[in-house]
Amino acid sequence: MSEFRWDPLKGAWVITENQRARQPREFIIERQQTPVTVCPFCPGQESKTPPEVFALRPDSMPINGPDWQVRVVPNKFPVLRIEGELQQHEFGLYRNIPGVGAHEVIIETPDHHRSLAHLDIPETAGVLQAYRARLLDLRKDLRFRYLQIYKNHGIEAGAPLPHAHSQLMAVPITPPVMRRELNTCRGHFLATNRCLICDLLAQEIEDGRRVVYNDGQFLVVAPYASCFPFELSLYPIQHNHDFALQSDAELLACAKALRNMLRRLYSLLEDPPFNFILHTAPPIKAQSGKPGYWETLPRDYHWHIELVPRLNQIAGFEWGSGFFINPLPPEEAAAFLRAIDPDLRF
Amino acid sequence: MSEFRWDPLKGAWVITENQRARQPREFIIERQQTPVTVCPFCPGQESKTPPEVFALRPDSMPINGPDWQVRVVPNKFPVLRIEGELQQHEFGLYRNIPGVGAHEVIIETPDHHRSLAHLDIPETAGVLQAYRARLLDLRKDLRFRYLQIYKNHGIEAGAPLPHAHSQLMAVPITPPVMRRELNTCRGHFLATNRCLICDLLAQEIEDGRRVVYNDGQFLVVAPYASCFPFELSLYPIQHNHDFALQSDAELLACAKALRNMLRRLYSLLEDPPFNFILHTAPPIKAQSGKPGYWETLPRDYHWHIELVPRLNQIAGFEWGSGFFINPLPPEEAAAFLRAIDPDLRF
Repeated sequence: MSEFRWDPLKGAWVITENQRARQPREFIIERQQTPVTVCPFCPGQESKTPPEVFALRPDSMPINGPDWQVRVVPNKFPVLRIEGELQQHEFGLYRNIPGVGAHEVIIETPDHHRSLAHLDIPETAGVLQAYRARLLDLRKDLRFRYLQIYKNHGIEAGAPLPHAHSQLMAVPITPPVMRRELNTCRGHFLATNRCLICDLLAQEIEDGRRVVYNDGQFLVVAPYASCFPFELSLYPIQHNHDFALQSDAELLACAKALRNMLRRLYSLLEDPPFNFILHTAPPIKAQSGKPGYWETLPRDYHWHIELVPRLNQIAGFEWGSGFFINPLPPEEAAAFLRAIDPDLRF
Repeated sequence: MSEFRWDPLKGAWVITENQRARQPREFIIERQQTPVTVCPFCPGQESKTPPEVFALRPDSMPINGPDWQVRVVPNKFPVLRIEGELQQHEFGLYRNIPGVGAHEVIIETPDHHRSLAHLDIPETAGVLQAYRARLLDLRKDLRFRYLQIYKNHGIEAGAPLPHAHSQLMAVPITPPVMRRELNTCRGHFLATNRCLICDLLAQEIEDGRRVVYNDGQFLVVAPYASCFPFELSLYPIQHNHDFALQSDAELLACAKALRNMLRRLYSLLEDPPFNFILHTAPPIKAQSGKPGYWETLPRDYHWHIELVPRLNQIAGFEWGSGFFINPLPPEEAAAFLRAIDPDLRF
C-alpha cells in the first residue's frame, strides 16, 4: 500500500508508492543526444563568453586565456540582469518588479568530454571553491536576497549544452523554497534550541536504512519523503549554516562525498539526467536597512545539497495538488545505491 | 528586460521573460509516439477495467456493456486505495498516513482516435457531467478532504495511454495548492467583502490583453503570472464556488468554452501535450467532526479550470527556488491564441 509521508524540513506531504518490487533498470531512460557544434565552454573559445568573473588557473597565466581548471562567466543569455533598480510597479491586483539579478555559469572542467562525476577529488573541490568565491563576492550587492547555485545535467534536466557546468542565479526576492526551509528550521530551533537538520541527521544515522554514504564528515541520504526516485541529499555532519564559510579542507571532504554520490548514480542508472541545488544561508540584512532580508544570521539553518534525478514526469496531479508521487521508496533506492560500486563505470 | 510578476491567487512570484519576439512555432515540440496495443478503454474491452462507477449510455443498455458515451472506472493501478483507516504513524521527526483515497479514470469518448478537442459540444458536456456526478458521489465519503480532477494529454504530460481520458483522485489531505488558493480567497473576502477571482476577472475583462475567449458566460485568459508559455485559465464569469453545483445548461456553456480553448491550442501548437486541473470547493466538515476539513462552505472561492501546456523543462533553478521562468509573456500568448481560427485543424 502507498503512504503519505511528511517532510519535516519542507513541510510537505509526498505519496510514496510501495506496491511492487521495482528494479533500478526500470528507471534507466534513453538519453537524448546533443547536436555537436562549436562549444563556447571549451578552452580556446573564451572570447565566445562574456569576460570571466572568477577562474582557477596558474597565477602566471593571463585572465580570459585558455589555461584554466574552473572558469566562471556571466551567462550570455541571462534570465536576470545586473543593471536596474528594484522599483515595484502595481496595477489593480497585480504587481511586478524588474528582473534584476545576476546569472553566471560555472564551467567545471576544460575537458568537453568529462562530466562532474569524472573529475578527481581536488578538481571537484575546485568547483566548490568557485561556488564559495562567487557567493562571497555577490553578497556584497545588497539588492540580492538569495544566491542560488544549481546544476542541470543532461537535456532532460534542462541543460542544452553538454559541457559540464553549474549556474548561479542571484535573485532580489528570497525564493519560496528557501524561505519555507529557513522558517521551518527557525521554528524548530525556537521550540527545542536545536538545529532541525542536526536532529534529522542523528535520526537518519541511527536508522541507517536511507543512508547511502557516511565518512564521519559528510552524509548522503535518500530523504524520507523523497519526491523522486533516487533523490539524494548531502549534508555536512557537523553543524554549519553557511557553505561560503567552509574551509578548503572542508570543501575537499565535501568534494569526496559529492563525487562518491554522483558516481553511484552514474554507475547504477547509466549517467542519468539530474539537477542538484545548493541550499545555504541567505545574505543578511546588514546595513541595507531594506525590508525583505533575513533579519539575523540564520545560524539555526544547516547547508546541504539536494539532488533530483529526472527520470519520470511531473503530471497533472502533481502540478494541480502539490503532492508528488514517488514510485520507489527511498529505503529501496538507498539499498541499491549502497550496493553499487561507485567506480563501476569509471 | 525580464520581470518578476506576483500571482495574487497563488501568492507566488514568476519570472516573465520579455527579451525578444518569439513565435508560436518555436514552442511546437515533436511528440512521442505511443506504441499500439489493445486499448483497455475501447468499447468491447470493458472487462479489462474494473467495473464502472458511472456511465452515460442509453437507459436500455446494460452496464459494463459497450454502448456508452462517457465511462468512469476505478483505476486498475491506483496510486491510492479505497480501503483503510487514516491512522497516523509517527517516529522521531517523521510521520506518515496510509495512502487511502480513490483513483478513477473518466474515459471521455468511445472513439480511440478522437481527443477531447475533437468532441462536439454536447459530448464535451457529457464529460463535465461525469465529473460532476463523481464529485457528488465521492463527497459522501468523509475520509476525503479534496477531490482532484485532472487530465494528462500526451506522453510528455504523463499520459502513457493515448485514448482520451481524465482522472479523479480523492485525497485524505487538502492539497497544498488548493489550501493556498482557498486561504488567499478567504483573506481577500475578509478584507474587502468581495471574491478575489471575481475582482480578478473584472480587471482582466477591462484590460483585455490577456483575454482569449469571452462569451459573456465563460472567460478564458492567459494568467498574468503564467508559469508556462500558453498557460490558460477558464472561469465562469458569474460567481460560483462549486463546480458540482453547476446546472446542465451551465455545463453546456462551459463545454463550449472549454472546447474553444482546447481547439485554439490544438490549432496553434499542433496538438500540444498538456495538463488541466479543475479547481473547485472542497468537501466540508459536515457531520464528520474530524479536524483537517475546511470548516465552512468556501463561498468566497470561485471554481475554474487551469491548463498548462507541457512544452518546456522544469530545471534546477525552478525546482530549487520555486520561481518559474516563463519565456513568453501571457499578453503575447493570448494575442496568438485570439488570432488563430479554433477550427483550423478540425
